[in-house]
Amino acid sequence: MCPYFISNPSTKYTITKFCYFYGMDKTKYLLEQFYKHISDNKKEKFATNIEHRTRHVTVVLENLFQPHNASAVLRSCDCFGIQDAHIIENYNKYEVNPDIDMGASKWLNTYKYKNSEHNTLEAIQHLKAKGYKIVATTPHTNDCMIDELPIDAPVALMFGTELGGLTDIALEHADAFVKLPMYGFTESYNISVSVALALFSVTERMRKSADINWQLSETEKNEILLSWTKKVVKHAKKVEDIYLSKLEEE
Amino acid sequence: MCPYFISNPSTKYTITKFCYFYGMDKTKYLLEQFYKHISDNKKEKFATNIEHRTRHVTVVLENLFQPHNASAVLRSCDCFGIQDAHIIENYNKYEVNPDIDMGASKWLNTYKYKNSEHNTLEAIQHLKAKGYKIVATTPHTNDCMIDELPIDAPVALMFGTELGGLTDIALEHADAFVKLPMYGFTESYNISVSVALALFSVTERMRKSADINWQLSETEKNEILLSWTKKVVKHAKKVEDIYLSKLEEE
Repeated sequence: MCPYFISNPSTKYTITKFCYFYGMDKTKYLLEQFYKHISDNKKEKFATNIEHRTRHVTVVLENLFQPHNASAVLRSCDCFGIQDAHIIENYNKYEVNPDIDMGASKWLNTYKYKNSEHNTLEAIQHLKAKGYKIVATTPHTNDCMIDELPIDAPVALMFGTELGGLTDIALEHADAFVKLPMYGFTESYNISVSVALALFSVTERMRKSADINWQLSETEKNEILLSWTKKVVKHAKKVEDIYLSKLEEE
Repeated sequence: MCPYFISNPSTKYTITKFCYFYGMDKTKYLLEQFYKHISDNKKEKFATNIEHRTRHVTVVLENLFQPHNASAVLRSCDCFGIQDAHIIENYNKYEVNPDIDMGASKWLNTYKYKNSEHNTLEAIQHLKAKGYKIVATTPHTNDCMIDELPIDAPVALMFGTELGGLTDIALEHADAFVKLPMYGFTESYNISVSVALALFSVTERMRKSADINWQLSETEKNEILLSWTKKVVKHAKKVEDIYLSKLEEE
């Protein structure tokens, strides 16, 4: 039930329209309706996971060409509570491998950049506009170890191809460069391992920090909870249409 | 040159025989000879890497069936300076995938357990006899987070199959159980990611500790340096035979 109904039944029609057209509580209303269709176990899992979810850290993958790597990265994002993953496809079409992804991608918001002439730049500009510092994970003159990376501002950790690393455009526009501990002959980790190690270091520090406001806002939580719920309710689109038309009728 | 020659030339013959038959300085002698055949760059790389190498932490893989996972694990072992990897093949034959392994396995000592009826038990007994605590990486009643695992004694981090995890035998004989941070729906990392995260946590703490004697002994260093050198010298077996026969003639 849309909360405005309860608090102020006399203005029912106006508020319903308000909810519907301006979307202010449409999400919350729909979430309440959808929650009638899912098990308590699911609700509990959603409630726990949403509190761990963050947009303070995000991952940007540029031109990965091995599907099992990209799939393993999405799986790690979910495991570390990262909600958003950005995928740049200048040359390589990215496909999820369900055996490796283990269904993780359906719980994430993935953003693809593949239609522009300058996909990498578009992704970087989009993220900078949202307040992210672009962090290139590659050895560089001005680099620091991953555990020294400042994380007071939101960070977008950017990873390049398995062989060539990040493109020049990515390196030119990066705000910081980080490297991972490395003591062997190989001199680079598998790409999905690199992402996981960087996320491990950054998110553990983030979660232990008292000063970083890394959690999602209430609005974001509801939006994501609704999207998760729709993934587990059969014929979600139909169900949504029914509830929205009910709202209209009231 | 065998150092005994220099310090005590009058007992040349006896000491040569001593070196040769009892192997006490055969390694050092051969290393000196082989070092004449490799570049200064290589020597420098070997000298740096051997100081970072450890046997205080080792990895045990039980029944992995996806070759790209096992190969990525070996690559991570090398990157983290882990010298030994133990591979149990109860059901699955392990094959290195050179695209993912990136040549890492040639710098490691890999031990395979595949011929016995009880390969897992054999591996565990072998490691316990060497003083390792067997650490099963799996959620368990008595588990702790990976960053709380005591590492004052050497640890063998044991990882099971991609789907079923470790066998009952492994779980029964484990000295400790650890889990990794986990905030998502997927509830497990890709196996090569799990190994890397565990190694990251354990080896970083180990390297920063003033109390843990994690470095190799001088004898171990020489043995491993010799094995590395043999990997980069052409016709190493022939070269070795020539030097050994010279030693015999002297």
